[in-house]
Amino acid sequence: MVFKLAIVKKPKAWILTIGNELLIGRIVNTNASWLARRLTFLGFSVERIIVTPDEPAEVAEEIRRALSRDDVKVIITTGGLGPTYDDRTLEAVARAINRPLRLNDQALQWVRQKYESGGMQMTKEREKMAYLPEGAEPIRNPVGTAPGSLVAAGEALIASLPGVPAEMQAMFEELMPRLKQLAPPLEVIDCGFIVVGAPESSLAPYVEEAERKNPGCYVKSHPKGHEIRGPVLEIRVLASARTRDEARELALRALEVVKGGARSLGGEITEEGCQE
Amino acid sequence: MVFKLAIVKKPKAWILTIGNELLIGRIVNTNASWLARRLTFLGFSVERIIVTPDEPAEVAEEIRRALSRDDVKVIITTGGLGPTYDDRTLEAVARAINRPLRLNDQALQWVRQKYESGGMQMTKEREKMAYLPEGAEPIRNPVGTAPGSLVAAGEALIASLPGVPAEMQAMFEELMPRLKQLAPPLEVIDCGFIVVGAPESSLAPYVEEAERKNPGCYVKSHPKGHEIRGPVLEIRVLASARTRDEARELALRALEVVKGGARSLGGEITEEGCQE
Repeated sequence: MVFKLAIVKKPKAWILTIGNELLIGRIVNTNASWLARRLTFLGFSVERIIVTPDEPAEVAEEIRRALSRDDVKVIITTGGLGPTYDDRTLEAVARAINRPLRLNDQALQWVRQKYESGGMQMTKEREKMAYLPEGAEPIRNPVGTAPGSLVAAGEALIASLPGVPAEMQAMFEELMPRLKQLAPPLEVIDCGFIVVGAPESSLAPYVEEAERKNPGCYVKSHPKGHEIRGPVLEIRVLASARTRDEARELALRALEVVKGGARSLGGEITEEGCQE
Repeated sequence: MVFKLAIVKKPKAWILTIGNELLIGRIVNTNASWLARRLTFLGFSVERIIVTPDEPAEVAEEIRRALSRDDVKVIITTGGLGPTYDDRTLEAVARAINRPLRLNDQALQWVRQKYESGGMQMTKEREKMAYLPEGAEPIRNPVGTAPGSLVAAGEALIASLPGVPAEMQAMFEELMPRLKQLAPPLEVIDCGFIVVGAPESSLAPYVEEAERKNPGCYVKSHPKGHEIRGPVLEIRVLASARTRDEARELALRALEVVKGGARSLGGEITEEGCQE
């Protein structure tokens, strides 16, 4: 069978999750994995996930690094949009792209409406949430209070979302039309199975062969048992192609290489399946 | 009451978690939060958590950045130590510190013993796990197969641990004596409570005041409810001082400032407690 290989280059994405609560290990970074999954299935290649302190200089440094790479088309930040003194992400974004913060009329209107609907007045802390980098577009927050910010910098988009997961996820949906414009014409699928009874070191040459022979695939073995006393491996293939059927065929073809190796080593294959 | 303030400077730590499975969002980075928590309670200030692809050039770039900062004393990497073609972390460490990889006798002996105890011969893929950066000390892996690596670079230690959580955690314990030598003479405590009924934006000035008036404390509010329709906040204080009692007093003093504010706003305080 002949395949047209996916030679489409994936645009890169960086995810910056901001907050000392992540750096002190109080919180597991589920925002990063959620965003990484969504961006991956949109066809982006996530090149970094970075957790920084709530320090504008540190955040700005990472944004500048991302922007300095030509192929980074999306930078998503989470956290640091709220009303407290350490919520300074948009200050960092503004600094990274050499723009001032400006009170955004639309954002201010949204924030004011939210508080007024609860019979609450505006304060300095509440108004703070409506300051965006000059030229940024506010992103509506359908769940909470702080608006997000979307700003273009060269060929990249910088989207800043809150750190509260329900707000972040809802606002990511608002971003989807913009992200789809930047996404490549690729369908992505993630398939795999479990092998019981074959050590990872014995299967390694087959994993390498599966990836080498199938461009557009990323093949990986994840040890779940004990290499020597009771090997259990999860084999995963992430395949990208122009159509869903091609992506699935590509993934299954790569998996077949590993399966052949696993069977020749006496491994038993279970739990086959795909996610797309 | 008079306190001696904690003016001890915390050494910084960077955590590099390596693996495409994190960047495609298949796996939530629990290794990073586990390590961050342990390092924080040892008295380190974790300055970055970075997820990189399985690309030695990318990993080496991040290690070099960490080393370029004087105050970074610990760099911990996880992942990329196994037998597969994409397990190339130690190649990256070696490259970052301009040393070659060398077959380490002790590491080779450990790996060989493990496989021979299971009646398995050495192969190229198995031997690969015993190559460490020149001058590195191997770290025994009491759970799995791949040894870790500990190497000094200037004033910093670079410790490389596997990505399998049980192996990583067990090997971190083997590192503890070395980390304690680098850790400052500080006790760290994390205390907090829940406030129901006070919006974050109203409590914000008290949170700021609590941190400003209590050096050695890091104070943060985490929204759990809805700012306007039903505010629920978790308030956390991370306090560091020379003794455990001082740290606890410091934390409680900072929390008292926020509590006063919360009560004046009609908030109800529940679930008080500390973790150390």
